Amino acid sequence: MLNLESESSSDWLNRALSGMDEILLDHAHCEKKAASTALSLIFRYPEQNHMLQPLSELAREELCHFEIVIKLLDDREIPYTKQKPSPYAGQLMSCVRTSEPNRLIDTLLCCALIEARSCERMQLLADHLDDETLAQLYRSLLASEARHHGIYVGLASQIMDEAIVRERLKEIALREAEIIRDAPAMVRMHT
Amino acid sequence: MLNLESESSSDWLNRALSGMDEILLDHAHCEKKAASTALSLIFRYPEQNHMLQPLSELAREELCHFEIVIKLLDDREIPYTKQKPSPYAGQLMSCVRTSEPNRLIDTLLCCALIEARSCERMQLLADHLDDETLAQLYRSLLASEARHHGIYVGLASQIMDEAIVRERLKEIALREAEIIRDAPAMVRMHT
Repeated sequence: MLNLESESSSDWLNRALSGMDEILLDHAHCEKKAASTALSLIFRYPEQNHMLQPLSELAREELCHFEIVIKLLDDREIPYTKQKPSPYAGQLMSCVRTSEPNRLIDTLLCCALIEARSCERMQLLADHLDDETLAQLYRSLLASEARHHGIYVGLASQIMDEAIVRERLKEIALREAEIIRDAPAMVRMHT
Repeated sequence: MLNLESESSSDWLNRALSGMDEILLDHAHCEKKAASTALSLIFRYPEQNHMLQPLSELAREELCHFEIVIKLLDDREIPYTKQKPSPYAGQLMSCVRTSEPNRLIDTLLCCALIEARSCERMQLLADHLDDETLAQLYRSLLASEARHHGIYVGLASQIMDEAIVRERLKEIALREAEIIRDAPAMVRMHT
């Protein structure tokens, strides 16, 4: 259902479990960036009327999650500060083709895969965290990530033939798996 | 309560009432831009922790309004397309000083005044529109605009002494009144 071409390693999971303060901070930044990306698509593609409502709703939901995570940071006295981001999203987006409508399709599919990877990792965190508050947080969020994955794939499929979209999704997912495999050993959601 | 230094002219009102399709389209773009501005402040000032939650909530509310207006455009078969914006916001923001914390204070106060002008004009539209659906729309939204005005002034007052903030708000409001007085005769919310 998530269309990923690899499973996260135990190395990543162990690193994350040992650095949950950093993961939480990164998570807050990721939710904020996810909202910003959805909003930027509304700005860039006003003529794609079918995307306006779903992307606006999605951005609102990402902002809700941002608020939940910053509240949790505050509860734990973890300062909300700038943080060096993982190179993951930038590397993934470098596969986006430059001519339309390919550019839009690829951007939507990259967003879909970022949501999918988040979902897969939130499931791992939910299953392995001893901290019940955090485990509960990730259990509560992962269904949204899966739904957002489906929304992005669905938006792409309204623009181009679904078989072509599926084929391109598989190509980008293979690239995504390489990026994850070769990621630096930083403590982030997407390394 | 809105801290404006002028009232909108009957010229503006008559132009708006004669061009409500254009006003509605501009309104959709304004809500989208308002959400984007709030989100950009979250990105630019992560260290201003007191702003994160209120600005995120405000951005969500602007997106809700965006969705309401694009639904209404769709119902009326008004295409959602790019539209030449009014020069108002750019002209107003040109008064923002360049050194911090003045830059942040001025940006927040400009946002506050844009919300105030929207509120004042939505009240005029609600009072004078014959179209009951549109009158009801503006009646339902203007309280939020007033609240957003207060939120932005409140955020500024948490960063700098309130008396200084109030003085600067008055200065920028005088400039805002000049910009509105000299605005081109376009059919927009802020001309």
